[in-house]
Amino acid sequence: MCRDCGCSLTPESPARIVEVVQDLLCENDRIAAHNRAHFDAHAVLAINLMSSPGAGKTALLEATIVALRSRVRIAVIEGDLATDNDAVRIRAHGVPAVQITTGAACHLDAQRVHEALHQLPLAAIDLLFIENVGNLVCPASFDLGQHRNVTLLSVTEGDDKPAKYPVIFRASDLVVLSKTDLLEVLDDFDPQRAAAALRGLGGDTAMICTAVRRAPAIAAWLAWLDAQLHGRAGDYRRVPVRRPLSVPAARRSGV
Amino acid sequence: MCRDCGCSLTPESPARIVEVVQDLLCENDRIAAHNRAHFDAHAVLAINLMSSPGAGKTALLEATIVALRSRVRIAVIEGDLATDNDAVRIRAHGVPAVQITTGAACHLDAQRVHEALHQLPLAAIDLLFIENVGNLVCPASFDLGQHRNVTLLSVTEGDDKPAKYPVIFRASDLVVLSKTDLLEVLDDFDPQRAAAALRGLGGDTAMICTAVRRAPAIAAWLAWLDAQLHGRAGDYRRVPVRRPLSVPAARRSGV
Repeated sequence: MCRDCGCSLTPESPARIVEVVQDLLCENDRIAAHNRAHFDAHAVLAINLMSSPGAGKTALLEATIVALRSRVRIAVIEGDLATDNDAVRIRAHGVPAVQITTGAACHLDAQRVHEALHQLPLAAIDLLFIENVGNLVCPASFDLGQHRNVTLLSVTEGDDKPAKYPVIFRASDLVVLSKTDLLEVLDDFDPQRAAAALRGLGGDTAMICTAVRRAPAIAAWLAWLDAQLHGRAGDYRRVPVRRPLSVPAARRSGV
Repeated sequence: MCRDCGCSLTPESPARIVEVVQDLLCENDRIAAHNRAHFDAHAVLAINLMSSPGAGKTALLEATIVALRSRVRIAVIEGDLATDNDAVRIRAHGVPAVQITTGAACHLDAQRVHEALHQLPLAAIDLLFIENVGNLVCPASFDLGQHRNVTLLSVTEGDDKPAKYPVIFRASDLVVLSKTDLLEVLDDFDPQRAAAALRGLGGDTAMICTAVRRAPAIAAWLAWLDAQLHGRAGDYRRVPVRRPLSVPAARRSGV
């Protein structure tokens, strides 16, 4: 079981620490592959939802459930340091939700997700959202067994965030700008600058806009979900999860 | 030198991992005490500023510099995964700023701060702000040698955050609600509920309101800073930094 971020490794890290982190990440990868086998055996699409605290992950999930529940069977694994507030919100929509409370841990790991997935009726689920701990750094470093990584960026956080938090944005299959209804009162967020910062990371990750307060505007998000669920049926399982970049390859292959 | 969060320790963590994390935190504490001795030798008040990404730490620092620079000599250590954007913003105000780029690391540690403080003219500084990496979890676990911990909570993040991220709010000497000018367009943030969530953690940490867009409203913040700088002159150095709670005491005292 993974216990550790390994995110502070530097070129001069002592060999003992590199070795421990290496073992932890290897063990996490093993359990993540096991989780993915569970999901694949039941044809469940698993999406890891990441963001800063308060970027609107749970609100987006609530709007998604309302929009899709007549045709897609959804379940949610919620990750938080404390409280089961988010799971309560999800269950109020009649959707199964398992709350993981991590204590002081800054991310979910594959072992915690494994314990949670066995509390869900996987055979009766099409789409599983794993809402990670609110943190724009550490969650990117742990494969949970998901098929897709989605990162929310609230427009209240500033359009420079892809440049300032490159690890998580590079690991993302989709970036969702959230709370775009607030753009009309913000003078320091330009979606074009955010898109340019994302492109500056060298990938081709798409960015879409959403808002869920008052009149929900999530059409692009629903279209992306549909494409993952049906448009490329079966294909997503062959797409490798983008690896975390926090431990350099050379460091992970040997001390 | 501290390399690691240790934030994923659980009751069943293997002894080898607990031991490594214990050693790391002990070594970090040793260097933090050394940093604090540097600050004390030069009568520098050091404040560790923490928050989620995009909560407005740098903007608050810019407004603070404008308000105080005629009478307080300020310097800043900036922490980010990548870019020196924030240090550039601070230097544009004529204030010395050292940028620490952590790569993929989710927090500053005492060693990185030690390397930075030797790039500053400590003898010519009254007040040093250490702007930590944007992260509402991990920075709380590392003593940097600061005298005070201040956590910003943007009103765009939701009033439940003290309950959901208890470790960092318990470790705070002051909570600063930021972007309160946006309260008029938000229907999901009640400062009274945020204050109740903070009180629910069992401490007596004060919470004040600030806004810096358009017309800055930072009087309460400046008054708090003055109280730390002058009202209790010399006293702050005897106030122990609140210890991080991520590694239970029992676990740190033995495996």
